[in-house]
Amino acid sequence: MSDDDRLYYWDYLGLDRLLDTQHLESEQAGRPAHDEMLFIVIHQAYELWFKQILWELEAVNTTMSQPHIAERELSQVVQRLERITEIQRVLLAQLPVLETMTPLDFLDFREFLVPASGFQSVQFRLIENKLGIDPDHRPLINQQPYTAVLSDRHAEQIKAAAEEPSLLSHVEHWLERTPFVQWGDFDFWSEYRTTVDAMLEREARIIRENPSLDEQGRAEQLAAHDSTVQTFATVFDRDRYEDLRGKRERQFSHEAFVAALLITLYRDEPAFQMPHRLLTALVDIDEGFTAWRQRHALMVHRMIGSKIGTGGTSGHRYLQKAAERNKAFRDLYDLATYCIPRHQLPELPPEVQQQLGFRFHTGSDETPAAGS
Amino acid sequence: MSDDDRLYYWDYLGLDRLLDTQHLESEQAGRPAHDEMLFIVIHQAYELWFKQILWELEAVNTTMSQPHIAERELSQVVQRLERITEIQRVLLAQLPVLETMTPLDFLDFREFLVPASGFQSVQFRLIENKLGIDPDHRPLINQQPYTAVLSDRHAEQIKAAAEEPSLLSHVEHWLERTPFVQWGDFDFWSEYRTTVDAMLEREARIIRENPSLDEQGRAEQLAAHDSTVQTFATVFDRDRYEDLRGKRERQFSHEAFVAALLITLYRDEPAFQMPHRLLTALVDIDEGFTAWRQRHALMVHRMIGSKIGTGGTSGHRYLQKAAERNKAFRDLYDLATYCIPRHQLPELPPEVQQQLGFRFHTGSDETPAAGS
Amino acid sequence: MSDDDRLYYWDYLGLDRLLDTQHLESEQAGRPAHDEMLFIVIHQAYELWFKQILWELEAVNTTMSQPHIAERELSQVVQRLERITEIQRVLLAQLPVLETMTPLDFLDFREFLVPASGFQSVQFRLIENKLGIDPDHRPLINQQPYTAVLSDRHAEQIKAAAEEPSLLSHVEHWLERTPFVQWGDFDFWSEYRTTVDAMLEREARIIRENPSLDEQGRAEQLAAHDSTVQTFATVFDRDRYEDLRGKRERQFSHEAFVAALLITLYRDEPAFQMPHRLLTALVDIDEGFTAWRQRHALMVHRMIGSKIGTGGTSGHRYLQKAAERNKAFRDLYDLATYCIPRHQLPELPPEVQQQLGFRFHTGSDETPAAGS
Amino acid sequence: MSDDDRLYYWDYLGLDRLLDTQHLESEQAGRPAHDEMLFIVIHQAYELWFKQILWELEAVNTTMSQPHIAERELSQVVQRLERITEIQRVLLAQLPVLETMTPLDFLDFREFLVPASGFQSVQFRLIENKLGIDPDHRPLINQQPYTAVLSDRHAEQIKAAAEEPSLLSHVEHWLERTPFVQWGDFDFWSEYRTTVDAMLEREARIIRENPSLDEQGRAEQLAAHDSTVQTFATVFDRDRYEDLRGKRERQFSHEAFVAALLITLYRDEPAFQMPHRLLTALVDIDEGFTAWRQRHALMVHRMIGSKIGTGGTSGHRYLQKAAERNKAFRDLYDLATYCIPRHQLPELPPEVQQQLGFRFHTGSDETPAAGS
Repeated sequence: MSDDDRLYYWDYLGLDRLLDTQHLESEQAGRPAHDEMLFIVIHQAYELWFKQILWELEAVNTTMSQPHIAERELSQVVQRLERITEIQRVLLAQLPVLETMTPLDFLDFREFLVPASGFQSVQFRLIENKLGIDPDHRPLINQQPYTAVLSDRHAEQIKAAAEEPSLLSHVEHWLERTPFVQWGDFDFWSEYRTTVDAMLEREARIIRENPSLDEQGRAEQLAAHDSTVQTFATVFDRDRYEDLRGKRERQFSHEAFVAALLITLYRDEPAFQMPHRLLTALVDIDEGFTAWRQRHALMVHRMIGSKIGTGGTSGHRYLQKAAERNKAFRDLYDLATYCIPRHQLPELPPEVQQQLGFRFHTGSDETPAAGS
Repeated sequence: MSDDDRLYYWDYLGLDRLLDTQHLESEQAGRPAHDEMLFIVIHQAYELWFKQILWELEAVNTTMSQPHIAERELSQVVQRLERITEIQRVLLAQLPVLETMTPLDFLDFREFLVPASGFQSVQFRLIENKLGIDPDHRPLINQQPYTAVLSDRHAEQIKAAAEEPSLLSHVEHWLERTPFVQWGDFDFWSEYRTTVDAMLEREARIIRENPSLDEQGRAEQLAAHDSTVQTFATVFDRDRYEDLRGKRERQFSHEAFVAALLITLYRDEPAFQMPHRLLTALVDIDEGFTAWRQRHALMVHRMIGSKIGTGGTSGHRYLQKAAERNKAFRDLYDLATYCIPRHQLPELPPEVQQQLGFRFHTGSDETPAAGS
Repeated sequence: MSDDDRLYYWDYLGLDRLLDTQHLESEQAGRPAHDEMLFIVIHQAYELWFKQILWELEAVNTTMSQPHIAERELSQVVQRLERITEIQRVLLAQLPVLETMTPLDFLDFREFLVPASGFQSVQFRLIENKLGIDPDHRPLINQQPYTAVLSDRHAEQIKAAAEEPSLLSHVEHWLERTPFVQWGDFDFWSEYRTTVDAMLEREARIIRENPSLDEQGRAEQLAAHDSTVQTFATVFDRDRYEDLRGKRERQFSHEAFVAALLITLYRDEPAFQMPHRLLTALVDIDEGFTAWRQRHALMVHRMIGSKIGTGGTSGHRYLQKAAERNKAFRDLYDLATYCIPRHQLPELPPEVQQQLGFRFHTGSDETPAAGS
Repeated sequence: MSDDDRLYYWDYLGLDRLLDTQHLESEQAGRPAHDEMLFIVIHQAYELWFKQILWELEAVNTTMSQPHIAERELSQVVQRLERITEIQRVLLAQLPVLETMTPLDFLDFREFLVPASGFQSVQFRLIENKLGIDPDHRPLINQQPYTAVLSDRHAEQIKAAAEEPSLLSHVEHWLERTPFVQWGDFDFWSEYRTTVDAMLEREARIIRENPSLDEQGRAEQLAAHDSTVQTFATVFDRDRYEDLRGKRERQFSHEAFVAALLITLYRDEPAFQMPHRLLTALVDIDEGFTAWRQRHALMVHRMIGSKIGTGGTSGHRYLQKAAERNKAFRDLYDLATYCIPRHQLPELPPEVQQQLGFRFHTGSDETPAAGS
């Protein structure tokens, strides 16, 4: 192999091209602004990381789209989702760098950028779509759908992506296949419901019989308790559940929701450990993007005040709205509402517990403890 | 000096007491929950840092309350405010630690804590009051003022603090004393206004004369432009300014606002460098607490779902509301709206520039360049 | 329940005592130094977090000390170790806060602290001992063992802790019990060795036959290759392995080392997923403390220069040395040296693979895919 | 302006090219490895940030190279240096992302990268040279100078850069021009020396007269004190100072060193506030790169063990060595050694103090307090 064929760091990373993609509009306009370089570089860094997040999401979606997912693949899915949350820490850490540019510095070149805008980040829209953000639920930009600010090529690309099954729907189908929701005589949902009903009844009795409460105090506590009862009713009553789903206040099918709860409550069983990590990673990712949108909104606010952004809309209000709405895994976020204390959990029948563990332990009590 | 009198790390830090203040309610109730220790320790760490923030704020308020503030003290004020922003990074970094506790782990001891709640953090309320959060603007907790959940002693302490002058008011008075807003023939505000008026007129003309716009496009752009004109009118028209102030949409007096703008626009002049850093640090602090409240809200949401918190209110909604409202320095946050590009800035008259610089430069051109 | 019995945030966290443990020596000496408060508070925050880390380590050690560890407990162990790594991010984030105090600020009160010193943090020593830092390998402080700077009570406490089995030894014993190192006809170690030998031989041949290499180039590459061969020999040759162990260059028994390698190489098998996460978390913890010691050393250097610390030793040199030496899980750190590419890994026999998976999949091929 | 001419986010950032520079060697070799994308993207993100750091350093060097630096420019220099430290936080935050790739994942494509290596990052070498890392002090790579692994074009570029004046030398010259080191009758250096001599004499007397010391204790303390005396002697005795400089243990000229100390000790004087921030920012930058090299070394260690890196050298040992050596501003780092407590500082004569403040205060006592 000659010297010229040996891989060289600079060429491997395409640095000739990568480091030649920073062209200052302010320079071209004859009024070079030092800080425009930062503005370009930081947005490029974001786009590089978005590409990486898409790379991970696509791999995860490919795995999760299979009708049967081997356990050995699940661990890899979790690892990739956790990588995304680690990248999100970088996305957040980048914002203070941009804040070293003051509003006055930004004004040195802001006019040259109109009407280009971060709203036009195609990759970020793809990420949102691949996660499963509901397109009909998105906030408008200038009273128009979010694709209106994109080039035709990109708008089509985005729409096509929005029609593909998202991670949300893959996870839903995977959850629907969870074993042990019903297993022989064991019916998780009815056991769970019995436990919750007893718990709620006990709480009501305590309020009714509490001698230290006066009339008003008791009325207030009973009203609060009733609101808890109603909250549980929205999952016990299938019609009400489907009703909420129709209004998009729930996303998962009832089967998927029940399975997610089963995994959450019995997460220590070996067979549920990785599934539980997977659900946790999804909530982490939702939280990471929400935190980033919120912080981004604050940054935009202090950078351009309540002026209209280069894209023609008040950036920080849009971002704040998007932070509130654009969560893909709201159902998982909300699972905590339906958790019950571990010591009140219905115990799993021994045969179910055995199935949820590894075979090599169960042959006999004398079997030498394995990996353990 | 005998050995016993020599300072010892353990005693210096009061560790006998400090490390003996973690008492698990779950243990006392006979059902010890491992994760309650984390819950206690992290809240104690927050309270330690709140104490430190109060320490810095009190020192800053003492300095800033003086009728005349020496420049040598200003640098120290900035250093202390920047310390607070560095502490805020720690406050944020602590949240992911708490998130290693899952909803199910929390349920192991949550019932033992009722009705104690983070709403009862007296020190955090003191911080908010010392910064200058408007008490009448705060969100309610359970339809009651935020002091209702506190013990009598603490409620009074808080009310007393709310009546003391805040950092916001000290900064306002300090700004009102800024020199050079008017200096001999130089009248900053009228120069600024002339510049803005010309800029707005030029922009209107461009829209009116742009041949590539159709009727509708022109109408839209003129409407947007008019909204910019109105925005500037709220600061040029003293009545409108005072009107907004009456509605608490502005906090600073007009004099203070104008001075803050002067400092922001001419921040490179030596005499304005530290004042500009001070204003920036204040916005950083506001942003830091807002980001913390937002992230905190997300964490509470995933930890307890949409249930009512131990304090009896939906924690995450309160926190989200507080994040939107409880900013002390909204006027500074909003300064960006009124910035104009540096190349359009009215030039300062030479005698003003000289006053804003150091004496030792100006004697003669031959003076050996100093510190420079 | 009367109002007075209701749990109150302030009392729950013992804030009356916690917030009364900050006593400035400089104040007592009549020359109050503002920044001493920060110095106290940050050290107290460190000690609170050290207490939490000890709490987690003790729980982990209790679980890991069992002769048989149920899989459902393993997940909890991993969760607790990962919590420690999240706490370590806070430990690191705290350092820049202390750096807002300049050397000159520190000098305002430094003399009052002599001879108290961070070397005297008993809890940090306990953490090191519970992890398994080799006491005989620790750097000296002022030519004396690290316990010499402690009070008698603490020195004894530390020595007692050093004699208890550490996490290192628990992990070693747990690894030694790993199943499938040998399983029926399958002998992992001999399969591994065969693969490595073939790989090394292939590499040697490539070097010998590479026509583009001149004499010197070939000699250099063969020397490098030989060093790789020697590296592998230290694990294949039991005598050499034990020899290194005698010199404390290896810590794990050979059985434990082999098992750690097995888990690392086949980490995707369901039964090895949690064990692999456990090993990873241990390395993360080692890295976290090393990074903290290094950064701490830099901070001390800039704070006191090359002067002798309040404890009588050049702080930053000690810390730098401790950063190099005080790793508990060096063997795990070093596992990468012995990894071989996945596509060259010997395939596990089907019956071993089956044992490493869950039972509910294997009953029949028609069984509906479960949790998957 | 037609639609096609309007600036579009995608084009502005050159995303067609930027997002087309990720080519997996493993894919080309027919064995695609998922994690190679991360490897490429993270290195590209580093190189983008390196470009930004170079951009800031070049602007700073241009300003600092002037024979006279206006105060208004100094504030900008500080802002740019502080931006670099904020970028360094991102560089550090990126490392945990790479650590989500395990050694086994890396092995999937590591062989395809040989002999490319991070040692070949031209931009990082340029940063080091522009800062002022001493080329003769750098650790060798494979017993060769660091330029040997670069292409001819890059090696020349680097050598040329190493010959240009660095930030270190610009800062040195700027420091040498600091006023007030000598001002009329005021001679800072002789005042400082008198103070230090008295302080050292007082300390010696305390040790000699301390009744609670036994012979050995006294001898030890006197020895420690003598070492302090010697440390100060290396700056008081010009010959010894120049001697250390000859051995490259000091970098600054004596004049520059004295000025840096003056600024550090009297940093609260208005005219020294920005210079002090500048010196602090330089130390922060040195510390940031050192911390990054150290953390990088840990990461490389766990990723490839003690194997030879793709570049043919044990990566983590090189990085560890570079972390120890490659500091540009060691003299500033070391200033803390020579600081003396504020209450012992010689007071500045009133006329010097006046010169260090702003003119508009000093005209008359009745002048309305300005900006203050």
